[in-house]
Amino acid sequence: MATPPPEDSSRRAPLPRRVAVVGCGLIGGSLLRALRAAGIPELLAVDRDAATRALVAASLGIAVHERPDAALRDCDVVVLALPVGALLESLAPVGSLLAGSAAVLTDVGGVKEPVLRAAAHALPPAVPFVGGHPMAGKEKGGFDHSDAELFRARTVALCPGPSAAPAAVERVRALWLAVGARTVLCTPEAHDRAVARVSHVPHLVASVLARVAASGGELAGQLAAGGLRDSTRVAEDPTIRQALTRNPHVAEVARTVADELRRLAERIEEGDSIDALLDEGAAARRRLFGG
Amino acid sequence: MATPPPEDSSRRAPLPRRVAVVGCGLIGGSLLRALRAAGIPELLAVDRDAATRALVAASLGIAVHERPDAALRDCDVVVLALPVGALLESLAPVGSLLAGSAAVLTDVGGVKEPVLRAAAHALPPAVPFVGGHPMAGKEKGGFDHSDAELFRARTVALCPGPSAAPAAVERVRALWLAVGARTVLCTPEAHDRAVARVSHVPHLVASVLARVAASGGELAGQLAAGGLRDSTRVAEDPTIRQALTRNPHVAEVARTVADELRRLAERIEEGDSIDALLDEGAAARRRLFGG
Repeated sequence: MATPPPEDSSRRAPLPRRVAVVGCGLIGGSLLRALRAAGIPELLAVDRDAATRALVAASLGIAVHERPDAALRDCDVVVLALPVGALLESLAPVGSLLAGSAAVLTDVGGVKEPVLRAAAHALPPAVPFVGGHPMAGKEKGGFDHSDAELFRARTVALCPGPSAAPAAVERVRALWLAVGARTVLCTPEAHDRAVARVSHVPHLVASVLARVAASGGELAGQLAAGGLRDSTRVAEDPTIRQALTRNPHVAEVARTVADELRRLAERIEEGDSIDALLDEGAAARRRLFGG
Repeated sequence: MATPPPEDSSRRAPLPRRVAVVGCGLIGGSLLRALRAAGIPELLAVDRDAATRALVAASLGIAVHERPDAALRDCDVVVLALPVGALLESLAPVGSLLAGSAAVLTDVGGVKEPVLRAAAHALPPAVPFVGGHPMAGKEKGGFDHSDAELFRARTVALCPGPSAAPAAVERVRALWLAVGARTVLCTPEAHDRAVARVSHVPHLVASVLARVAASGGELAGQLAAGGLRDSTRVAEDPTIRQALTRNPHVAEVARTVADELRRLAERIEEGDSIDALLDEGAAARRRLFGG
């Protein structure tokens, strides 16, 4: 991964004092754990599932509400840690609750253009919204797999909406810095274009590779080894699906990958060398991940 | 990985007594280490590189010849552990050396139709040839990274040539069982079709994904995370290249993957659900690698 420039700590806002996290799955649960470890004095959680509420309350000793309510109004930051579909539906009701409060609203959804567009329509104009997307996850979801260290050294993209003043952005940024992440500011479009390339299309490809490999029958199963295991791992991540199908750049990037694959197939059939293209691929990976 | 049926030990040939390994890179070096650990009494190595010869001789205390010579004639098994290009060129000279001896010749090349075809042309008809392909590797090649445990619990495909009697196949099989691998017999065509699906095309795809991700500029680099790191890992494996470009089924499988990607792109653009296809992908991966 290219190393981003060091955070400018002189611009850091103070730590939020009271934070609400709506949704206690892998990301929301991990954020709650990490915020508690970071010393945020007051945490409030919301989850519609009774068993999850009991588990979170018992694990963290915090109040867990069944649905967003007036208690959110007293928070410095409200984090919507919901799958993208539920997130989009939550904007209008949470927005009405927050109207007139000082809370900054943010989210963790994996796609940003549709979320920022929906926020602009659904939220009262005075509610500051800062879109967020932590580049962190696991194969297994749910509070059971939550981890206070999930965001350590990970990048969080922040996409401020038009209603978010610089101080609102800084408040959300301070929250992520407190849990060990680094942040990068970008437009929703730049985010979605980049994430199509580095996450959403690789997910589609992993899924296709798994299907094509399994279609090779018993022998393919016997010969499948560690390389394929790694290159298809993300095919099992279920949380990404609601984001990628809403990413307006996914189809174009998927076609680019398909075209490049066809180009390699043609060159191989014509007996032309593909060494230069494969060298470029290896060099590109070293640029992305070092080594 | 689907678990193959247990090996039938009643059919096991005795361990080869004297084995030569031609080429002391990652695979050849690991095989030498593993065979010594398995108690093969006499090992002979061949490598054209002087520094590698010195290293292998010092590490294993065995004779390392500069090129294949008459000493190969006394071996039970001769393993050509060379990159596919050099392997194809070595068949005729090694075949002449082995004519009239009792040695069985085998290889570790990642593609089998071209190797078996070349063997049929280049070897004297009386030299038994059993094509082999251990599904094992590492990102880093060379004797420096060799490992006596590299083949443990891995699958080795065996593709007997027309000159190989069952006893010759069993002798090669005994060698791989001795180093902890399991074997599966298949035709060269079935091997190459399966390996296109589970290894060669995933390699091409990883290379394309790395290039497309890196083309997203600095933001894509900042947002690239663990999923992409895994799904592009095989892009850095250099040994596979000589095999995949000679695999007659690679282009067709690459086109299948490209077509499936385009189909997903179209469905996403048309707003059709891709859930069933992604569910199939996740289920396919579980079939290949377990839950």
